[in-house]
Amino acid sequence: MATSAPVETAAMRRAIELAARGLGHTSPNPVVGCVVLDSAGRTAGEGWHQRAGGPHAEVHALRAAGERARGGTAVVTLEPCNHTGRTGPCAQALIDAGVARVVYAVADPHPSATGGALTLAEAGIDVEGGLLADEAAAGNEAWLTSVLRGRPFVLWKYAATLDGRIAAADGTSRWISSPESRADVHRLRAAADAVIVGSGTARVDDPQLGARVSGLADDAVSQPLRVVVDSSASAVKAGARVLDGTAPTLIAVAEDADAAHLEGLAPLVRLPRAPGRGLSIPALLQALQARDVRSVLLEGGPTLAGAFLAAGAVDKVVGYLAPVLLGAGPSVVGDVGITTLTQALRLDVTDTDRLGPDLRITATVSHPATAATRPRPGTVRAAERPASALRPEEN
Amino acid sequence: MATSAPVETAAMRRAIELAARGLGHTSPNPVVGCVVLDSAGRTAGEGWHQRAGGPHAEVHALRAAGERARGGTAVVTLEPCNHTGRTGPCAQALIDAGVARVVYAVADPHPSATGGALTLAEAGIDVEGGLLADEAAAGNEAWLTSVLRGRPFVLWKYAATLDGRIAAADGTSRWISSPESRADVHRLRAAADAVIVGSGTARVDDPQLGARVSGLADDAVSQPLRVVVDSSASAVKAGARVLDGTAPTLIAVAEDADAAHLEGLAPLVRLPRAPGRGLSIPALLQALQARDVRSVLLEGGPTLAGAFLAAGAVDKVVGYLAPVLLGAGPSVVGDVGITTLTQALRLDVTDTDRLGPDLRITATVSHPATAATRPRPGTVRAAERPASALRPEEN
Repeated sequence: MATSAPVETAAMRRAIELAARGLGHTSPNPVVGCVVLDSAGRTAGEGWHQRAGGPHAEVHALRAAGERARGGTAVVTLEPCNHTGRTGPCAQALIDAGVARVVYAVADPHPSATGGALTLAEAGIDVEGGLLADEAAAGNEAWLTSVLRGRPFVLWKYAATLDGRIAAADGTSRWISSPESRADVHRLRAAADAVIVGSGTARVDDPQLGARVSGLADDAVSQPLRVVVDSSASAVKAGARVLDGTAPTLIAVAEDADAAHLEGLAPLVRLPRAPGRGLSIPALLQALQARDVRSVLLEGGPTLAGAFLAAGAVDKVVGYLAPVLLGAGPSVVGDVGITTLTQALRLDVTDTDRLGPDLRITATVSHPATAATRPRPGTVRAAERPASALRPEEN
Repeated sequence: MATSAPVETAAMRRAIELAARGLGHTSPNPVVGCVVLDSAGRTAGEGWHQRAGGPHAEVHALRAAGERARGGTAVVTLEPCNHTGRTGPCAQALIDAGVARVVYAVADPHPSATGGALTLAEAGIDVEGGLLADEAAAGNEAWLTSVLRGRPFVLWKYAATLDGRIAAADGTSRWISSPESRADVHRLRAAADAVIVGSGTARVDDPQLGARVSGLADDAVSQPLRVVVDSSASAVKAGARVLDGTAPTLIAVAEDADAAHLEGLAPLVRLPRAPGRGLSIPALLQALQARDVRSVLLEGGPTLAGAFLAAGAVDKVVGYLAPVLLGAGPSVVGDVGITTLTQALRLDVTDTDRLGPDLRITATVSHPATAATRPRPGTVRAAERPASALRPEEN
């Protein structure tokens, strides 16, 4: 097995960029990018997985490369799949195209897709995994988390003052954060499969929850499923902006809620109540997973954010911090069940950025037993995949 | 008048560095640094104002330069003083030393000290003001603010969680912020003339409020005056750590408070009460100004911070933001009298830094009618000083 050449590393970086173009369009599939190099190491074709049900990245790139793929190298962000789903297995397509070498970044942890590397190696193709694995995994964090945790990846977004308020004492909140921050939220919405708000936000703000991205036509922007958690079916009413038909909407209500007035307005999902805390968050996430949602943008408010945090169901936090002080008003997160400092939820700040006058803080939440790179026993069989058999030290 | 040469700009940068060594030691005087260049532009002497009552920066630098000052250039961060206070006027010392040129950064806005530039020019010395004025003014922000606003400069420091809490629901707060952040607070204390806490903090935390700086012997660190705002004289008791004798302490109580138990324990100052808000903050600051305090580090808690903010008496904010979520517990700032978003206090973030796992946010508070560079009519006569007559465009 050869060691990755600089040209392959550059191609992998390009493949990671290409993969990102699929964000928001590919669920329940991952985003994947692929660059095919000819036998001289020149780029012969590029491709990315553009939408669920469409061709995989490798197929796009092989088509673009044509005969130049023969004897060349396929550089791909995820281990090529081995199964026949809505499209044929990519491993077979690569074998048929006559590539001599395949370099991938991240091993496919999905039980039904794994094994592609083994298939390729058995066909005599030189296979190497792990090139820029961390970068590629970061680009696919939502999908990888959803596979490894068995529920959608949850990004909680909030906008608050320096003193942690999301509104003034009289409830006014437009606008605490800057136009730049608000535009950034639309970018997060476009990359998510679903956006979730609680009944308080629905009642007070009547949000539309669509994604509008500057410089992109509306139909080029992926619109997330709009989810309102309305346990008692009392917040969403006819005429609400989430019912404007511009994107799908789902109303989550309690099993025992009287939701007759919502019939015909939007699809409903009935979920069990959590003890004293609105709906069961795990049940909500399972219902979304079943609808092919792999990434969720949780937009609050404080009660729902507290419930998600208490359920250990937040993977990443993006906070927009406005340089504003209020001294009164609702706090950014409600009861999480924490009473003393040793129980505090501790995060790791991964990035800080300035957005106009605001700060954007990005942080990850550690789930001690279920870190994203360590599968939870009994959920998926990622730990059992055979890809490690192909690592250099064992070949 | 010559234009500043690169060698003078470099010397001014060095003088600004030297000036900073005086922070915490020079009140009620400013910090000042001075570099004397010989007639060939080589550094002949350096000095800074080390402590109130001691020689001014120019005198230290001229002494170091000796005869090499003759025909040379004095580069100084503040316009040389023109008055005879505890030491003689620096303008005369520069004339006596025979320097040919004086370059200063910031004009002296103090009514009794201004006019030094004019005196120098009248003696035939080439004088230029304004070199690196913004950098030098930033290094002297506390003193300049105190002169222009007629009260000490106030830096409010807080440490909070991402959701704006300073303690958990049960009151536990040790430690929300990182060791790196806490060490940084000691640096702020050492640079301040006084540290202020409220009765709640005194009662709950019994803080010692001393400055300990890693790498410096205790006696090399300037200890701030420790001020406890204890309106009803009920929080500070014999044995409190602020009474340990390691630094001066001042207890501020209401005019009508029964403070007999504090007699002999610490100096008291009696102040008028503010309507519904503890003591009058302007009266407190006047009392400190009268005690030669020019810079104050306000360490909270939320009630006192709210009172200072409501009084428009915070000039700068340093927030230590720990990547922690609590969902309950006291907020970082109490009632400021703000009920709706249009009344919100808006700040300008000037710096963000990482301190261990924490973020440090530095922000300034704009006082629309009394920006630090624009003197308030009727407080000091800075606007009337004649230094502008020496600016290049008018000579």
